[in-house]
Amino acid sequence: MSFSPMKAEFINPFLNSMKSVMEMMAQIELTAEKPIIKKDDVSKGDVTGIIGMVGEEVRGSMSVTFEADVALEAMQRMLGESPRSINDDVIDMVGEITNMVTGGAKNELSEKGFEFEMATPTIVKGKSHFITHGVDGPTIVMPFNSEFGKCFVEICFVSKKG
Amino acid sequence: MSFSPMKAEFINPFLNSMKSVMEMMAQIELTAEKPIIKKDDVSKGDVTGIIGMVGEEVRGSMSVTFEADVALEAMQRMLGESPRSINDDVIDMVGEITNMVTGGAKNELSEKGFEFEMATPTIVKGKSHFITHGVDGPTIVMPFNSEFGKCFVEICFVSKKG
Repeated sequence: MSFSPMKAEFINPFLNSMKSVMEMMAQIELTAEKPIIKKDDVSKGDVTGIIGMVGEEVRGSMSVTFEADVALEAMQRMLGESPRSINDDVIDMVGEITNMVTGGAKNELSEKGFEFEMATPTIVKGKSHFITHGVDGPTIVMPFNSEFGKCFVEICFVSKKG
Repeated sequence: MSFSPMKAEFINPFLNSMKSVMEMMAQIELTAEKPIIKKDDVSKGDVTGIIGMVGEEVRGSMSVTFEADVALEAMQRMLGESPRSINDDVIDMVGEITNMVTGGAKNELSEKGFEFEMATPTIVKGKSHFITHGVDGPTIVMPFNSEFGKCFVEICFVSKKG
């Protein structure tokens, strides 16, 4: 597959993986809104998992941002715990979700001939923070709604060839 | 070089690179405190650059976290601009610093036979946020002081062999 970060065949594996992981792990049904090119601060959240990706021809980053209520509800449903705020267990869960979403998309893209390796996830905790990916390429934002609030998957890839 | 994330020969390239980049780019002199293994939320900041790293045997992540006043002073010194808050230019600068610090450490480590590739930087903006690296390995925190406030470099590497 030739690399084009705007193409649906590149975006959909991340979108589908996020929906599957949240449904499978936390029984939270997400409604995907239309993916958009990120402009300004359309996506804020309270806890975010970030992962770097390196392939033969491209490098990039992916993030999963949750509003606090969605993350806390997912925690309750996955582990039966009801933390009142984003504690270490929620941070671990968000790291795990970040790994799973990226891993799922990686498998689907690998079947199409697009290969990359994943770094380790990094998790950000902070009220209403905002993520910016790279500076050289467009960032695609996939907004999701749930009955507990919003979450966002964002991807940014740039060609290694500069 | 055999991989041991706790070893000084692994930590020092990041520590030295951070000091050099901040002195060279922003004429801000940093005083390095003793690197420590991260426990709880010792390092909070207002703007952070994060980058993933993937090598033959290891994967990991690195972050550079600034208190707002240090980032704003660096902006003033590097570009002559005096933003009152962390705007897009400051975010770009932090992304660039993240690339340069990691790139400098990568070069020094490469000479010692430790190779990795860098993903693209991701930048977090948010008052007093807190970063957690991975979940499987220790995170080394390198705290720095300056006359304008604190900043922190953090690295976490885990073996691919699980």
